[in-house]
Amino acid sequence: MIETAMRRAIAASAAARGASSPNPAVGAVILDRDGVVIGVGHTQPPGGPHAEVMALRAAGDGALGGTAVVTLEPCNHTGRTGPCAEALVDAGVAAVHYAVADPNPAAAGGAATLRDAGVEVVGGVLEAQARRGPLRAWLHRQRHGRPFVTAKIAATLDGRIAAPDGTSRWITGPRAREHAHTQRAAVDAMVIGTGTALADDPSLTARRPDGTLYPHQPRRVVMGLRQIPADARLRDGTSPFVHVTTHDPHEVLAALPDALQVIVEGGPMIVGAFLAADLVDEVHAYLAPTILGAGAAAVDDATVTTLTRAHRFRRESVTELGDDLLVTFGRATD
Amino acid sequence: MIETAMRRAIAASAAARGASSPNPAVGAVILDRDGVVIGVGHTQPPGGPHAEVMALRAAGDGALGGTAVVTLEPCNHTGRTGPCAEALVDAGVAAVHYAVADPNPAAAGGAATLRDAGVEVVGGVLEAQARRGPLRAWLHRQRHGRPFVTAKIAATLDGRIAAPDGTSRWITGPRAREHAHTQRAAVDAMVIGTGTALADDPSLTARRPDGTLYPHQPRRVVMGLRQIPADARLRDGTSPFVHVTTHDPHEVLAALPDALQVIVEGGPMIVGAFLAADLVDEVHAYLAPTILGAGAAAVDDATVTTLTRAHRFRRESVTELGDDLLVTFGRATD
Ligand SMILES: NC(=O)c1ccc[n+]([C@@H]2O[C@H](COP(=O)([O-])OP(=O)(O)OC[C@H]3O[C@@H](n4cnc5c(N)ncnc54)[C@H](OP(=O)(O)O)[C@@H]3O)[C@@H](O)[C@H]2O)c1
Ligand SMILES: NC(=O)c1ccc[n+]([C@@H]2O[C@H](COP(=O)([O-])OP(=O)(O)OC[C@H]3O[C@@H](n4cnc5c(N)ncnc54)[C@H](OP(=O)(O)O)[C@@H]3O)[C@@H](O)[C@H]2O)c1
Repeated sequence: MIETAMRRAIAASAAARGASSPNPAVGAVILDRDGVVIGVGHTQPPGGPHAEVMALRAAGDGALGGTAVVTLEPCNHTGRTGPCAEALVDAGVAAVHYAVADPNPAAAGGAATLRDAGVEVVGGVLEAQARRGPLRAWLHRQRHGRPFVTAKIAATLDGRIAAPDGTSRWITGPRAREHAHTQRAAVDAMVIGTGTALADDPSLTARRPDGTLYPHQPRRVVMGLRQIPADARLRDGTSPFVHVTTHDPHEVLAALPDALQVIVEGGPMIVGAFLAADLVDEVHAYLAPTILGAGAAAVDDATVTTLTRAHRFRRESVTELGDDLLVTFGRATD
Repeated sequence: MIETAMRRAIAASAAARGASSPNPAVGAVILDRDGVVIGVGHTQPPGGPHAEVMALRAAGDGALGGTAVVTLEPCNHTGRTGPCAEALVDAGVAAVHYAVADPNPAAAGGAATLRDAGVEVVGGVLEAQARRGPLRAWLHRQRHGRPFVTAKIAATLDGRIAAPDGTSRWITGPRAREHAHTQRAAVDAMVIGTGTALADDPSLTARRPDGTLYPHQPRRVVMGLRQIPADARLRDGTSPFVHVTTHDPHEVLAALPDALQVIVEGGPMIVGAFLAADLVDEVHAYLAPTILGAGAAAVDDATVTTLTRAHRFRRESVTELGDDLLVTFGRATD
């Protein structure tokens, strides 16, 4: 029963991805005394309520004597919102089950506060699953002091992203592009190079297939020295535009202090620069069922000279998206 | 019962792939009067018995009044071996079920001969499955007058087959290489370019992981104008070596009149030449979980200039082979 509720809490937390930053994407479920789900919630954008408070609001009086199931240890600090541990005590829940302990010293101690108030507290419920879920990017930032970086590649079977005449729309099909947009809608920023910005004048927004915008839009980040024209789509105000005039990917990440997850969309040199700097935590490869045999390669990294120095990843998933295949990879050593 | 037997006949026919050429890789199962499997067989190498005769031998007297289940319509002609239709009549089977009718005028008529002898004959059993199975290459040759061509690519995620310093062993892991050798052992010929022959001095044999040779070895074919040294491994006599001094892939196939299936193993220009000539029926892409960012691309085809002219395929299967992925593709239009 608790595990089923935790799975539901993890699923609910997905809706907070991107929008909750710099706060973690947390999910919470409230069960009444009989174990019936009476409230589900996820972290709201900064300044708004945390997941526990959202779930408690939905639950109302039924929370008294009930159980809270949360993906992260309830916070103990009084930030812009009151501490969640206190809200749970006030609501009179009898037990709190969480997946992952809070590694952040400023917020930790929620479990102790709850126990002191006589609440039964159990940690570590489906912890591994929760760590791999929507909490992943925030946990990564807590540990490494920088966002979780996803490199996206959309290429032909032979690793090409454009034909010799520069045509590149579209290498992948509508289902793959739709999927890529759902990913954009769940992160804090997208990074491209000046080359792509100038060649394609992309809007870099997160759109549904009908062209409408998702509620959460990532920052649009360009790296490189050349200027971006005043009339570029990137500057249309749909979401913040950030130009980092550098070739150093570390500086790009430093310019995004609140970001939990960033997608590097290319072009080839930018993906190569993040790989060379060992800053790629995940690869999303969308592979089309086509062979070009000529044209630009997906990745350009002049630092790799011999096979033993290749950037090695570990396959995490394979998904069929219409005619295309999405293969995701994490770090080979984690 | 008949369909189960047909599935078994199709499975049995796999052992004939490559070895039976130029005859089709056929499988046969004999059921006794009670429907019990009493004989299974597949086509032997040229001059040896066909599948039906092998299965009848295994069945012995039990075939009398029984049923033969065969992937291809039993042959009617008297070649080096007697016609199978006659052998089935002589054995006294009461019924013959086959999957695919023989499109070859010289051999067809087996069904009529059987019916004339009072045997019940049913065609079209699991026909689509049988056509996609080990019969595929032979049916292709009957229809198109040339072998079925598989292009093999073993590349990094970004489509590279070698690092800038030329190192290329090994891009893929042991399970992928083992799989590639099972494919070699099931075809008639392997084609490489003089570039690969001279750079790698490959043996191009079909080997088990322990280094021993599979019983059937494909012909080793090199295309290109440069000479191959007398001490090249390709000339060691393990299996026939064919040097076709041409740049035209049609001439290469014409030099293999008995071949049903050929694997084009590269390098990049050779795969590109077969693609440009529209001679690739299937692609086997072994993809490693690595990114090089530099080095030779898997396919080199200067005839493709714009995206709409990309060579398009249809995904047929995705198989995990250790750390690598094998994705197979057939023609987009079939
Ligand atoms: N299919 C896909 O997934 C995909 C994705 C993106 C792009 N593309 C295609 O890629 C093409 C653009 O390729 P591109 O190589 O010109 O673009 P790029 O990789 O976006 O930009 C390259 C430029 O970025 C700057 N830069 C920033 N950091 C750098 C670093 N560490 N190293 C080197 N340069 C750095 C340099 O310009 P400065 O002189 O301004 O510093 C450099 O010329 C377009 O045709 C686009 O359609 C395809
Ligand atoms: N990972 C893999 O799957 C894989 C597979 C194979 C090779 N490789 C690697 O590929 C590298 C060799 O590449 P490569 O490009 O030199 O070799 P290649 O493609 O095997 O051979 C190219 C040569 O073949 C001849 N040729 C024959 N037909 C041709 C045509 N239609 N068009 C152009 N040339 C034709 C030409 O030489 P002539 O002047 O003699 O006619 C040409 O220089 C090696 O490092 C090898 O390890 C990797």
